Amino acid sequence: MKFSIQKDRFAQSVQDVLKAISSRTTIPILTGVKIDATEEGIKLTGSDSDISIESFIPKEEEGKIIVEVQQTGSIVLNARFFNEIVKKLPSEKAEIEVVSSFQTVIRSGQAEFSLNGLDPDEYPHLPQIEEGEVFKLPTDLLKALIRQTVFAVSTSETRPILTGVNWRMEEGQLFCIATDSHRLAWRKATVETEANAEYNVVIPGKSLNELSKILDDTQELVEIVITDNQVLFRAKHLLFYSRLLEGNYPDTSRLIPTDSKTRLKLNTKEFLQAIDRASLLAREGRNNVVKLSMIDNEMIEISSNSPEIGKVTEQVRSGEIEGEEIKISFSAKYMMDALKVLEGTEINIQFTGAMRPFVIRPENDDSILQLILPVRTY
Amino acid sequence: MKFSIQKDRFAQSVQDVLKAISSRTTIPILTGVKIDATEEGIKLTGSDSDISIESFIPKEEEGKIIVEVQQTGSIVLNARFFNEIVKKLPSEKAEIEVVSSFQTVIRSGQAEFSLNGLDPDEYPHLPQIEEGEVFKLPTDLLKALIRQTVFAVSTSETRPILTGVNWRMEEGQLFCIATDSHRLAWRKATVETEANAEYNVVIPGKSLNELSKILDDTQELVEIVITDNQVLFRAKHLLFYSRLLEGNYPDTSRLIPTDSKTRLKLNTKEFLQAIDRASLLAREGRNNVVKLSMIDNEMIEISSNSPEIGKVTEQVRSGEIEGEEIKISFSAKYMMDALKVLEGTEINIQFTGAMRPFVIRPENDDSILQLILPVRTY
Repeated sequence: MKFSIQKDRFAQSVQDVLKAISSRTTIPILTGVKIDATEEGIKLTGSDSDISIESFIPKEEEGKIIVEVQQTGSIVLNARFFNEIVKKLPSEKAEIEVVSSFQTVIRSGQAEFSLNGLDPDEYPHLPQIEEGEVFKLPTDLLKALIRQTVFAVSTSETRPILTGVNWRMEEGQLFCIATDSHRLAWRKATVETEANAEYNVVIPGKSLNELSKILDDTQELVEIVITDNQVLFRAKHLLFYSRLLEGNYPDTSRLIPTDSKTRLKLNTKEFLQAIDRASLLAREGRNNVVKLSMIDNEMIEISSNSPEIGKVTEQVRSGEIEGEEIKISFSAKYMMDALKVLEGTEINIQFTGAMRPFVIRPENDDSILQLILPVRTY
Repeated sequence: MKFSIQKDRFAQSVQDVLKAISSRTTIPILTGVKIDATEEGIKLTGSDSDISIESFIPKEEEGKIIVEVQQTGSIVLNARFFNEIVKKLPSEKAEIEVVSSFQTVIRSGQAEFSLNGLDPDEYPHLPQIEEGEVFKLPTDLLKALIRQTVFAVSTSETRPILTGVNWRMEEGQLFCIATDSHRLAWRKATVETEANAEYNVVIPGKSLNELSKILDDTQELVEIVITDNQVLFRAKHLLFYSRLLEGNYPDTSRLIPTDSKTRLKLNTKEFLQAIDRASLLAREGRNNVVKLSMIDNEMIEISSNSPEIGKVTEQVRSGEIEGEEIKISFSAKYMMDALKVLEGTEINIQFTGAMRPFVIRPENDDSILQLILPVRTY
């Protein structure tokens, strides 16, 4: 294997596949990045067996020569060192050559690195995904779907299925749902799909987080292929594979109340900042709990109390208050997480009682909702 | 005590004195920030008993009213919470009032915090420094003196005196010296001083680091007062006290070689980057060691070798090579630390043998030098 390549483009691709590579893997070859030089260009692969990322660098891009392959071939190089080296190469160009029994030389300017590589034949094969039904999402919408749900997955392995986000496709609508059983994030989107495909899968939260980091904020379409145990996201020159979680995701539709006894309209930013201030003193106390109560039909009060340190109260004006009076306590963290991902300047909160889950929605937008379970304090 | 104050100005001062406050202190009252409201303005104090910082906010600044004191008095408030609260206050103004037995109310906009304070009479007194001899340094020069020496102090408590920077004043010249016994940083500066004062003190590295963080990059003069066991830095509205380290600082002048057998001239940035690349593979091996050797009378070679991972060699052009051929090994980290603080595009390195300390100086500047002890490998 021997090729020369534009350093910056190469460094970006190495950085991308590195996101799949864990230094704590028990399979030594997976600490490496696999490099394949073919007549078409350079393919880089990184994997931790849950997530696999493939990045392709074509010989030419926009009429500019990026790669020159003198000899095709493959090698696996320690990902952490290789990444550091590529980033710091002195010249704009790098030359990579396997000289003997996996020993690989990297030349750039006056610098020459020699790395002990590993046998590329020992590198595991990526999942084979049959090119069946495909659906497409613009990259920025995909990133929004992830951002607005993935924060609510469970971080505990007690119920492993809850560490993933449930993706259900029904009648051309994609529903993304995450819950850690204390709060729930729900988002739907209309999807470009060829057939009337129906899916019901659970994608690990970690995979979605890593995917989101790699994708740029563009409107280019990402192709998504779902099989029994794998999902593949295909963007330009990038393949992102993740395994799916096994098991049945709980039916969350029953959790979302359909009626309400109290309804509040609030300015999102003002409310978020008031919760943030109240949480300053709540953090030390019982699990970051703040209280919300009504003062009159225009004002609510946010408060928290941490006997050793002090207390805080703040009044927030509500655009509209309807229904029964309510006093309710909840986690400031869950509320802030939810408010941060809701778009729009105004939100509605619907309560059905101090001990029942309540729902937060942006004003005039039914594509997203956040649900939080209250905490018993009164 | 009762006053109202501009939030941003207040938050900045709280932030400054916070740098002296440690949450790991064994003296509970020192986790607090002391607030004194007087007819002149507000004084904030933070201390960990090694470092004490006092920040003063005058009633008026540039014709603008900053503070209005309704009732003078003092209180001590938990610094961590108070800092978080002040930063996040909703309005541009804050009102602080001690309502009863140290309970303190902070009002801003619609938010009201109530914090349990501590008795200000229990707060330790700051060191009393006699206004004796004073010398002055422009803030930016003071920050340069710190930055160019403090990185070389010892981080080990084996010889506590080496955790500080030696400041010696002789004949209107200030010498700042730091060493961890493997490398040494030396800097001198001419100083504005009234009398022909002579000092020889050791200032804790930690104190100098914190001082440097608080000071802005201006040319305003900082007044420095040195006593037997304390140093005081006085900037506009800011007092920074540090205890001095006890004991005699070793005489380092003998360590600096006066002759040389080999002399190299190098481009600082090119050399730094080559060392950085060589250190990529050196980190895993023996203590981050790289080798420098001569190729001919124009080129040197930097190399390192880590048998399990690989090796790197790089040639660097030297502007001038004089004297005996040399092969020498040294810590890449020490070399990078030294090069980063040397100003100027070109440096001279002077060797007196492969096992003797060598000296790095900027071309045409005798106010600074860095000394590194080599590592035995050949």
